[in-house]
Amino acid sequence: MGGNRWHGRPTRDRRYARTVVSSALPKADVGAVRTRDAVRTRAEILEVAAEEFARIGYAGARVDEIAARMSTTKRMIYYYFGGKEQLFIAVLEHAYTRIRAIEQEIDLAAIGPVAAIRELASRTFDHHDAHPDFVRLVSIENIHLAEHMAKSPVLRSLSSPAVDVTSAILAAGAAEGVFHTAGDALDIHMLISAFCVFRVANRHTFRLLFDRDLLDEGRREVQRRMLGDVVVAYLTTPVS
Amino acid sequence: MGGNRWHGRPTRDRRYARTVVSSALPKADVGAVRTRDAVRTRAEILEVAAEEFARIGYAGARVDEIAARMSTTKRMIYYYFGGKEQLFIAVLEHAYTRIRAIEQEIDLAAIGPVAAIRELASRTFDHHDAHPDFVRLVSIENIHLAEHMAKSPVLRSLSSPAVDVTSAILAAGAAEGVFHTAGDALDIHMLISAFCVFRVANRHTFRLLFDRDLLDEGRREVQRRMLGDVVVAYLTTPVS
Repeated sequence: MGGNRWHGRPTRDRRYARTVVSSALPKADVGAVRTRDAVRTRAEILEVAAEEFARIGYAGARVDEIAARMSTTKRMIYYYFGGKEQLFIAVLEHAYTRIRAIEQEIDLAAIGPVAAIRELASRTFDHHDAHPDFVRLVSIENIHLAEHMAKSPVLRSLSSPAVDVTSAILAAGAAEGVFHTAGDALDIHMLISAFCVFRVANRHTFRLLFDRDLLDEGRREVQRRMLGDVVVAYLTTPVS
Repeated sequence: MGGNRWHGRPTRDRRYARTVVSSALPKADVGAVRTRDAVRTRAEILEVAAEEFARIGYAGARVDEIAARMSTTKRMIYYYFGGKEQLFIAVLEHAYTRIRAIEQEIDLAAIGPVAAIRELASRTFDHHDAHPDFVRLVSIENIHLAEHMAKSPVLRSLSSPAVDVTSAILAAGAAEGVFHTAGDALDIHMLISAFCVFRVANRHTFRLLFDRDLLDEGRREVQRRMLGDVVVAYLTTPVS
């Protein structure tokens, strides 16, 4: 990380090494190196910023502190993102893009609707389990009434494909006669999200009240299977 | 509220009226009035404090502001509760006591396990729907890693009866042969809580992403029934 020319405090030796390498490269390659460095630096800032926002909240986070944690400068972060609010929005966009991409990978045609809805539940479960910071960021943004996300056109554009995946699975299940409940795609999306979010978001109060850590690795598989069973049972049970 | 002798800024007339009433009462009744006033003032402080903590978070809330909103003094709030942290803990204790009492009212013997688990889901749904501040307080306390709740012996003592209600319903359903899934009481409690909490806690990001208000009154009954269907379908479906 320290050898990246975009960082604020390169050592003399590293800067020298970079100069030597750059001058030894053809001009087109120097441009490629610069682009690659910029992409990498931007990704590093997003990663550190996500941790810091998730740890301390939007109001409490300081761009100076984020810069200090990755040996860059506040000015460099402003150069890339514009300011603290834009940085927070970029962190949310990055986080939501990842979960949305995971949903898109499900091959409904290959595995059929029952396996596909279970797969959607499991993938959401695994994502939230592996990225507790994502859940905390979403909690923090809800405390702020989603006022930062409202400024992002990117985030709205991600939602439609997510609903399309669920809708396609439900339509296939109804067509094949395996789903008896006319589940609404957004309600199913919500049911899955609620389960996966709660484990992480309400972990601390739940542990205190009931003496159970919802993120206990020993119970992860039980909960993961339970969520699939819950969604499949709901969709395959005829409405009474 | 303004005529209460425990408040900091009574008008001259109201203070006079109180004195006249008190001096006209037998001594035992004066004591009863004082106790009643103290109970009422304490409840009022808790109500205003719950709103303020839910609105602005634990770190942002100010005891001065809470006092100003109910025409009492910071000193009076300290007299009743000790300090900001103890006030916040008392708010959480009060809120959890209410939801736990609602769970206890279910008459399993009268309605049987299927109706009882649906009733538990519906009551939790209705409570969280009617008390969004409760859900926000719990979110805020999770951001703080439940460190305040950890100081309350009251809160832990409330949890065991809550689990007992769910356990009794599951045991009755298994004994009657209507529940086929050996549901774990805490997992079922979590499933119900997750659905009811998410609607409120993630309302703002969900609305922004999917253009649906999860607290829309027009869809409340659909979601309420859905949660009951989800839990009953899960418990009554044989494990494959």
